[in-house]
Amino acid sequence: MINPFTDEYFMKKALQEAEMAFEKDEIPVGAIIVIDNKIIARGHNLTEMLNDVTAHAEMQAITAAANFLGGKYLIGCTLYVTLEPCQMCAGALYWSQISKIVFGASDEHRGFEKMGTQLHPKTTVVRGVLADEASELMKRFFAEKRK
Amino acid sequence: MINPFTDEYFMKKALQEAEMAFEKDEIPVGAIIVIDNKIIARGHNLTEMLNDVTAHAEMQAITAAANFLGGKYLIGCTLYVTLEPCQMCAGALYWSQISKIVFGASDEHRGFEKMGTQLHPKTTVVRGVLADEASELMKRFFAEKRK
Repeated sequence: MINPFTDEYFMKKALQEAEMAFEKDEIPVGAIIVIDNKIIARGHNLTEMLNDVTAHAEMQAITAAANFLGGKYLIGCTLYVTLEPCQMCAGALYWSQISKIVFGASDEHRGFEKMGTQLHPKTTVVRGVLADEASELMKRFFAEKRK
Repeated sequence: MINPFTDEYFMKKALQEAEMAFEKDEIPVGAIIVIDNKIIARGHNLTEMLNDVTAHAEMQAITAAANFLGGKYLIGCTLYVTLEPCQMCAGALYWSQISKIVFGASDEHRGFEKMGTQLHPKTTVVRGVLADEASELMKRFFAEKRK
């Protein structure tokens, strides 16, 4: 039997969140958190609407997932996020001890890998899942902004 | 005339926040944000109470200050925090473009300086203000925890 719950399957859900950010005129980044193939948290970038640099998609998803689980550690959870996390979000993920991070497009300027942010030693990382879709959405956003 | 608004003056206010965390059985870290010698935001660590790794004193103060100012950038502001910020908080401070960070005790294991987190190029840092008081509070907290 084919497993429908692939990384691509869940990244599509994160992309839907990114599209919700786009529609709100926010830089289109979306995130979901999954445990045992179940989505327990969703978030999309709301930094403009909330006037708050901390309102990244990942931060909201981390808070929501911990609220769902009733504990602050996200052991056994996977974060799917359309763009590579920044220093702040990677730092939050470090504290959460999340088991797996899957991201779409790389952020070569402000991504945590370029910036050297440390994750928890037990966290694994998968890169580039539906990266083209995530990049395309970002490019479309900034192209419209320049109009 | 003597200027009463020294870094020590404001750090004492941050220490009061740290004491509030202590009383709630939280790791005692406190923060305030100041603009033009006026305190516009306060926060203390609430990670246990909120079950949320993102609920550091600095994160709450950043969100509160932006809310007060009606904008997400903290240009012209100073953060006073009793303990050196972590990667997450330093990453948030990077996005905020805050003008100055004053911290008390260094965190040699998980502080942003050891971890290599980048601040905004316009942010200046002052270290070690009332560091002994901040360290003493932390030591007392962990000593009581071990009992």
